[in-house]
Amino acid sequence: MESIVVQKYGGTSVGNIERIFNVANRVIATKNKGNKVVVVVSAMGDTTDELVEKAKQINPNPSNRELDMLLSTGEQISISLLAMAIQSLGHEAISLTGPQCGILTTSNHKNARIEKINSNRIKKELEENKIVIVAGFQGANENGDITTLGRGGSDTSAVALSVAINANKCEIYTDVDGVYTTDPRLVPTARQISKVSYDEMLELASLGAGVLHPRSVELARKYNMTLIVRSSLSNNPGTEVVEVNAMENTIVSGVALDKNIAKISVIEVPDKPGIAFKIFSALASNNIYFDMIIQNVNRAHVNDITFTVKIDELHEALEVTKKISDEIGAKEVLCDESVVKVSIVGTGIAGSADIASSFFQTLYDLGINIQMISTSEIKISCIINEDNGINALNALHEKFCNNNPIEENKAV
Amino acid sequence: MESIVVQKYGGTSVGNIERIFNVANRVIATKNKGNKVVVVVSAMGDTTDELVEKAKQINPNPSNRELDMLLSTGEQISISLLAMAIQSLGHEAISLTGPQCGILTTSNHKNARIEKINSNRIKKELEENKIVIVAGFQGANENGDITTLGRGGSDTSAVALSVAINANKCEIYTDVDGVYTTDPRLVPTARQISKVSYDEMLELASLGAGVLHPRSVELARKYNMTLIVRSSLSNNPGTEVVEVNAMENTIVSGVALDKNIAKISVIEVPDKPGIAFKIFSALASNNIYFDMIIQNVNRAHVNDITFTVKIDELHEALEVTKKISDEIGAKEVLCDESVVKVSIVGTGIAGSADIASSFFQTLYDLGINIQMISTSEIKISCIINEDNGINALNALHEKFCNNNPIEENKAV
Repeated sequence: MESIVVQKYGGTSVGNIERIFNVANRVIATKNKGNKVVVVVSAMGDTTDELVEKAKQINPNPSNRELDMLLSTGEQISISLLAMAIQSLGHEAISLTGPQCGILTTSNHKNARIEKINSNRIKKELEENKIVIVAGFQGANENGDITTLGRGGSDTSAVALSVAINANKCEIYTDVDGVYTTDPRLVPTARQISKVSYDEMLELASLGAGVLHPRSVELARKYNMTLIVRSSLSNNPGTEVVEVNAMENTIVSGVALDKNIAKISVIEVPDKPGIAFKIFSALASNNIYFDMIIQNVNRAHVNDITFTVKIDELHEALEVTKKISDEIGAKEVLCDESVVKVSIVGTGIAGSADIASSFFQTLYDLGINIQMISTSEIKISCIINEDNGINALNALHEKFCNNNPIEENKAV
Repeated sequence: MESIVVQKYGGTSVGNIERIFNVANRVIATKNKGNKVVVVVSAMGDTTDELVEKAKQINPNPSNRELDMLLSTGEQISISLLAMAIQSLGHEAISLTGPQCGILTTSNHKNARIEKINSNRIKKELEENKIVIVAGFQGANENGDITTLGRGGSDTSAVALSVAINANKCEIYTDVDGVYTTDPRLVPTARQISKVSYDEMLELASLGAGVLHPRSVELARKYNMTLIVRSSLSNNPGTEVVEVNAMENTIVSGVALDKNIAKISVIEVPDKPGIAFKIFSALASNNIYFDMIIQNVNRAHVNDITFTVKIDELHEALEVTKKISDEIGAKEVLCDESVVKVSIVGTGIAGSADIASSFFQTLYDLGINIQMISTSEIKISCIINEDNGINALNALHEKFCNNNPIEENKAV
């Protein structure tokens, strides 16, 4: 039986005419192996940024609906050009916008969520033996208004379509060879991982390892869709994201450094029930992501509450927090942008008591002060001063990923 | 009662940010006078040409469907930016693509015809007091595939929408003050006409006077929609296109020069029934426009057939003609690109016997050889050598439009 493969190519992979033909050839090669192929593409190179820039020149606060109308043209240009390239190489191809693919989303413009996919059109075109090229990052709400899916939207489109058409696998093409134990630009000894679990990938993605967007990984995990991260410029097999029981017996899969965070502290919060709730529900209702909450008692009936936010949401987060802070009678709101988060991720973390102590020991040996700690089944994260980030990352990678000393210890 | 005004702005009118704001201000001014306003816009400046160029770099013969997918982004960018501009000036606006406006077309990509408009969405937005901005030039076929309407498509969109929503008038904004007696760049004494009939406008448009596309004028005539041609850069009232009985008593409204034609001759065609039919039905089925057919008998049972085509369709027309020519056993196919068409247009032409002789006399006085002649109720056209074009145009304008000598004659 023919298998169905969904391939997603990012903006750099279709950044110019030569690269568009590179993608066209890869897609055709996959088709020639006897697969039905659906290709999801992003906007070419910097197109999206250029369109946003144009919008800002006209209106510093453009409406989200009109911004979606504008931005969605970026992918529409890529899909038509890729279809033309494939056709010029003698193969049948058809491009479809998000709305044409039946991708129904919420009306939350600029950050819509996929609600349903009516995949009849795609299936019909696949049955007619065409290569189907789909605009990533976009859909339409129930009124037919064009929506975009926000960050990582094209990855999400690819996984959601894979699920909708029951694809055998979803390949995410990018400009690196796969998922690494850590960022190779920061740690020269970083090595590529052949398999990683959804949960680990999720942590690595949300920690700024950056190859895949968490939303797409969550979706793949939910429907158990095989996800493969590969380079569009090499033939490296890449990294397969799989269920945890399909994993090799590694304890720590990766080490991550997230520089794009900031710390907000609300000082001297009256110690009454529901106060923390007020702050975090206000942030949530403004779609601001927060993390790593710490509440420490200073003196009787007064607390400090500290949490981290994404640096590009800091301005908005501060506004919301200050407003609530005034309402609840806190003393002041402080913020610190000079922090980073280092983390280790691995399915074996919860099962090994040594790991946490080994983690803290490594930072202690470097004389690094830990400001905040957060742990989960498969992750340990610390907030430290940004000056220590690279050092900590290298030491943690050396400790957990290169020589696998923990596994050795465990074996003893 | 509030009236509904449809305004169409061409690509140069929205060619940069300053001009987009100029359009935004005009639209708002119209709204502030108590009108409901629908604005139809083309792609900014040279966007369409740039997109075509990009496509050709990838595929010298891109599929029309994919070309439509690509080109339609041009208008989508304009409408979102214009909506943002109007919003930044404090007014409610919403942009809609052709498909979102319910513009249902044939599937003839690159040159689709509007079949039906479901105007519910536009009406709903107008009722909510919004300025509605519509992407001209585009629609969707019954499968939801994006189509474009070909040359003059945005004018056609504007008129068709005006009819669908029962607008009081349709204003076509351009970079000239209205319709002129002839091209002011070629004839310095050309003057703007305040009123012209649909039929005259149709002839002027199809003869290369160029302000309005014939399809839009035909549609306006069919539904008796008041059409106004105005400048987006001045407050000149422009030219109103009206029914013939609303006309002033001018005999000749305009003089036109069409340089974009070429002459094709099929030499020594066997004189059998149905031969001419074969040539012209083949051209028609290839969507090639032809005009000015002459068939002259050379000798017994052999004819020459000569006709004109648009210069940008010459290549295709020659291919089709040569194929048929071989089939029917004609001797050869010749072509001549060094020809132009001069014409006079006016509702009074059929009623005045003097006009034709005066027309030919004018060319004769200049020593110009007439190669082909064609006349209608409201038009006389001649094919002459291109070197004589400007001279002929000026002389005919002087004769018929400036001093109105015919009217004087008539009065005698």
